[in-house]
Amino acid sequence: MTGEVEGGARVVITNLRPRLDCGRYRVKAIEGDHFEVTADIVRDGPDLLQASLRYRSPSAGWADAPMSHLGNDSWAGGFRPNAPGIWHYTVQAWTDHFATWRRDLFKRVDAGQAVDLELQEGALLLEKRLGAVPVEKRKVVQAAIDALQAPAELRGWDDPRAAAAVDESVAAIMAGHPDRAEAATFQPALELNVERVRARFGAWYEFFPRSTGTDTEHGTFATAAERLSAIAGMGFDVVYLPPIHPIGRTHRKGKNNALEAEPDDVGSPWAIGSEEGGHTAVDPKLGSIDDFDLFVGRARQVGLEVALDFAIQCSPDHPWATEHPEWFHHRPDGTIKYAENPPKKYQDIYPINFATEDRVALWNELKKVLEFWISHGVEIFRVDNPHTKSFPFWEWVIDEIRAQHPNVIFLAEAFTRPKVMGVLAKLGFSQSYTYFTWRNTKFELVEYMNELVHSDMVLYFRPNFFTNTQDILHEYLQQGGPPAFKIRLVLAALLSPSYGVYSGYELFERVAVHEGSEEYLDSEKYELRPRDFGAPDSLIPFIKLVNEVRRQNAAAAELTNLRWHEVDNEAIVAWSKAAPGEQPLLVVLNLNPSGWEEATLHLDLGALGAGEEQPFEVYDIVKDTSYVWSGRSQYVALDSTDDPAHIFLVKA
Amino acid sequence: MTGEVEGGARVVITNLRPRLDCGRYRVKAIEGDHFEVTADIVRDGPDLLQASLRYRSPSAGWADAPMSHLGNDSWAGGFRPNAPGIWHYTVQAWTDHFATWRRDLFKRVDAGQAVDLELQEGALLLEKRLGAVPVEKRKVVQAAIDALQAPAELRGWDDPRAAAAVDESVAAIMAGHPDRAEAATFQPALELNVERVRARFGAWYEFFPRSTGTDTEHGTFATAAERLSAIAGMGFDVVYLPPIHPIGRTHRKGKNNALEAEPDDVGSPWAIGSEEGGHTAVDPKLGSIDDFDLFVGRARQVGLEVALDFAIQCSPDHPWATEHPEWFHHRPDGTIKYAENPPKKYQDIYPINFATEDRVALWNELKKVLEFWISHGVEIFRVDNPHTKSFPFWEWVIDEIRAQHPNVIFLAEAFTRPKVMGVLAKLGFSQSYTYFTWRNTKFELVEYMNELVHSDMVLYFRPNFFTNTQDILHEYLQQGGPPAFKIRLVLAALLSPSYGVYSGYELFERVAVHEGSEEYLDSEKYELRPRDFGAPDSLIPFIKLVNEVRRQNAAAAELTNLRWHEVDNEAIVAWSKAAPGEQPLLVVLNLNPSGWEEATLHLDLGALGAGEEQPFEVYDIVKDTSYVWSGRSQYVALDSTDDPAHIFLVKA
Repeated sequence: MTGEVEGGARVVITNLRPRLDCGRYRVKAIEGDHFEVTADIVRDGPDLLQASLRYRSPSAGWADAPMSHLGNDSWAGGFRPNAPGIWHYTVQAWTDHFATWRRDLFKRVDAGQAVDLELQEGALLLEKRLGAVPVEKRKVVQAAIDALQAPAELRGWDDPRAAAAVDESVAAIMAGHPDRAEAATFQPALELNVERVRARFGAWYEFFPRSTGTDTEHGTFATAAERLSAIAGMGFDVVYLPPIHPIGRTHRKGKNNALEAEPDDVGSPWAIGSEEGGHTAVDPKLGSIDDFDLFVGRARQVGLEVALDFAIQCSPDHPWATEHPEWFHHRPDGTIKYAENPPKKYQDIYPINFATEDRVALWNELKKVLEFWISHGVEIFRVDNPHTKSFPFWEWVIDEIRAQHPNVIFLAEAFTRPKVMGVLAKLGFSQSYTYFTWRNTKFELVEYMNELVHSDMVLYFRPNFFTNTQDILHEYLQQGGPPAFKIRLVLAALLSPSYGVYSGYELFERVAVHEGSEEYLDSEKYELRPRDFGAPDSLIPFIKLVNEVRRQNAAAAELTNLRWHEVDNEAIVAWSKAAPGEQPLLVVLNLNPSGWEEATLHLDLGALGAGEEQPFEVYDIVKDTSYVWSGRSQYVALDSTDDPAHIFLVKA
Repeated sequence: MTGEVEGGARVVITNLRPRLDCGRYRVKAIEGDHFEVTADIVRDGPDLLQASLRYRSPSAGWADAPMSHLGNDSWAGGFRPNAPGIWHYTVQAWTDHFATWRRDLFKRVDAGQAVDLELQEGALLLEKRLGAVPVEKRKVVQAAIDALQAPAELRGWDDPRAAAAVDESVAAIMAGHPDRAEAATFQPALELNVERVRARFGAWYEFFPRSTGTDTEHGTFATAAERLSAIAGMGFDVVYLPPIHPIGRTHRKGKNNALEAEPDDVGSPWAIGSEEGGHTAVDPKLGSIDDFDLFVGRARQVGLEVALDFAIQCSPDHPWATEHPEWFHHRPDGTIKYAENPPKKYQDIYPINFATEDRVALWNELKKVLEFWISHGVEIFRVDNPHTKSFPFWEWVIDEIRAQHPNVIFLAEAFTRPKVMGVLAKLGFSQSYTYFTWRNTKFELVEYMNELVHSDMVLYFRPNFFTNTQDILHEYLQQGGPPAFKIRLVLAALLSPSYGVYSGYELFERVAVHEGSEEYLDSEKYELRPRDFGAPDSLIPFIKLVNEVRRQNAAAAELTNLRWHEVDNEAIVAWSKAAPGEQPLLVVLNLNPSGWEEATLHLDLGALGAGEEQPFEVYDIVKDTSYVWSGRSQYVALDSTDDPAHIFLVKA
């Protein structure tokens, strides 16, 4: 029997929340947030209870936060974890004998009963606790004991002992130094996975360093570093690099995923490893590890963090294929198995056998890969296809790494079934790619956001909304053109605290390899794609504006503050986000990339801090214009070919 | 971390339901019911899974019931516990390597790929399992192995080996004899508390044996036994007797709860114990223990079970007060504490100190009390005020008793806060008194029933709806007169599978001790109340009819099959209950005891098995009349001074 209350089981603590899968997985929180815990607490009989939320930081002992009774035997308390790492929390409750005695005494004295024996009982209760009371307070308690034991002639409240019995200062001392010898404690204590703010909030920019050269020259860490201030200038927080390791030659894919590569084809960075090294090496074409360090340092200077890809798979040329053939799967003829999704074959990739007999060595080697990059300043890993790897490996390695490096963040690139994505998040991934790319209509967006915001998923699953990736160019962007790019940017950046774009988005790149495909034509996965970011009419100013809104408004950094507002047009969606002490953000967005839409908004004024009667100002950050509104119904019209969105600050 | 999956953790089992407070408490079920279990099951990678619901009866080893995939990684399976006692259940899941191989082979052969190595892999998979396959099936498997290993020239489905590979009979054998070596099993297994049908379904009748004499003569077990066939004739299943033990003299309460008793006052049966004995003695005025045995035997003959009161409290004259003063609470002057609810004092009652140092002896003595009455044929205990006793005691004693006597049923008489009532149910009480008496309007009734039927309470809380008790005569009955008695009977008996009435209900007894009180005038708790059950115009024929409906319709024996039907009048309520293979019951009830109400019913035709187009017959059991209805909207009119209810059988 689990979650059992030990000790004084006359007090029963149930329904402790939050709790994830009965404590099998850790609930997640962000450093600095208020973490609230509730529980149902009852005991048999009429005695009064007190309860305390007990919590423990990764580095200190247990501390207490008082819990208060919300009614219907439900209690609540909270604390603010101030460091990343694994915290613990539980609930303790005990019978408050003195408060019970005092409550009953009030009733007895009110009824004019003789209370001589009851006063003696009170003196005994105080005496029993006297030693536990700090020395400086003992005088007060001793005085009460003496008063209770004094002889008295009068009855009721005229009895001077009665006043001593219900003295507030004595009651406060006793409440503050309770006897928890028979306390019930919810067991086992629950774990809380606290992460730094970036685990929830960040704007990501993905780019291939090798594309920062010219049409003929392979880019390097040095040329890539030259892009960093422009990326920072757009307001991004994280630059994510696809794998930077040596790329295999055997079965290398050519341009547009051709089965045979031309001699000068650069290959896919996800075909990791060659005679030049594996997961801890850098592709010599990009430079040396020192060059990488310079790149990381330059990023830091302009306020960017570097996220690396962690793709656990090998090209046939990876050193492990010869040094550790036992780390791979084998066919009956003894050859190493290449990746397959029958009938598709990926002969340039060897998947790893996580259940190998030699798994202790394998798992530790993979952990060392992460430690290597952490030692080079990387604290964010975008994990490639974690659902095709091993669940127990992820739970183990994320735990091991975060125990030493609690600032490390793992993003799961798992485009798979919802419950598999959920398990990865529960196992420890800080955040996850999502189905956002395929949610385009108002119905789809509202339904999906409500699932993310209003279900148990808030306890463990943090979304990262990518507008596009090197693998996903959605039809909506292919067909919708620049307005579609603006619309999807506003959705990604202002619905989800974490979001990202893949390089080229700012240039409206939108040609698919063929109709009906989500793959890019001339995909950067297989060739260099140098770009001219100075092109006129790019999305760069708008990206800058949206990222600025995110940075200026703490409301954008949270997920669960999302509130929808009614709009009588399926092509327009409106939502707001509010944070304490701030003007709420209100976004009204035309989802139709081909033009003009109008509608009546029916605002949830309460969510905006506005009243039904009082006019209030809304300031449109996009247009730099203010309006004065009154009441919940407002006319809006948006031409997506101009600006598809109002992004209002509500000055109610 | 609790509920962890052991072994092959690549398979993750979560969200196993039903589960109560993470397994801290047992889910309840009734013998013979289908018990359904669901779980979310996923693994990393694309391999196929199989899952099994594992269960264990109190007396046998583990058995398996297959689980099937419902979609979205949710699986379900069930079994039918066929004996009362503690059962166990869990979920096991494993990778089905052969099925995965077979699925992939289909795709490869379809694509015309060379599959020589894959066929070898298949042969190896079959060989590995050959020893686990029953001897009589091995020939089939060996033939498949031979076929897979034969040389072949052809490709695709022309290859004779391909046909052997996907042979259905081989697939069925492999599925039926899976390799569970790496199976994941949800741990720890959960416990299921299975009880006999009476724990959910029964009609109770409470009466005081001592009132079966005359105005001047104290009733006895012998005179009480004479009432039994009439009670059975009304269709009741259980007779519940208030305490039958010797009654204390000290501070005995007089008629109408007078502080001082007259010499011939009989006292309250709940002031248990005198020099004539305590909890295992019978009041000599009622007869001997042999007389009690005869009473129980007579009850059994007419199809009635006897339920006894289990009230753990003592009169000051109880033998324990002198033999075991340490089992009680004490005041500072050394005297035993009487019961109090400050400022009220109950000097005729000593409560027990369950936390006494001598609690091992005390608890075992209390257990022996139950065992004593069980040895005299009692298998149902109505427990007096269990919430003022000890939670851990109840959990312990119910467990101890039911381990030896799995047919024993405990009814909690806990009129207290909802979560305290919930904890008692979770600790093991089979059923509970409820707030039903105070739910009189349609709004109140619907809200309360929905809480009982559509919340997690269905896992552990079984209601017993009493129309009245010796303590509760609701204002609705006091003022509503005979129609109110009919209305409340229909509600109690046809909303809740268990219900009860307290003697005198059939005679419409409804005079309170004073206005605003729920206590009876001349309460039977303090005096003899011989009654004339032959009075004309009693409720007896109607009780008989309603109990007959309950017995004839399995639908009435269940709680969760309740469905409401819309009625456009707040004074009329309509519900139905259906059971497989039966005509559904439809009740339409006028809640206004003072007369006539009419309304339009808007039926949930689906719940009645009726169609929108096809006319259907409804037979009113009360009026012995049939109607033909068509469509969901039907006019009804009910005069509560005549018959407040239609009780229809729906012949759709």
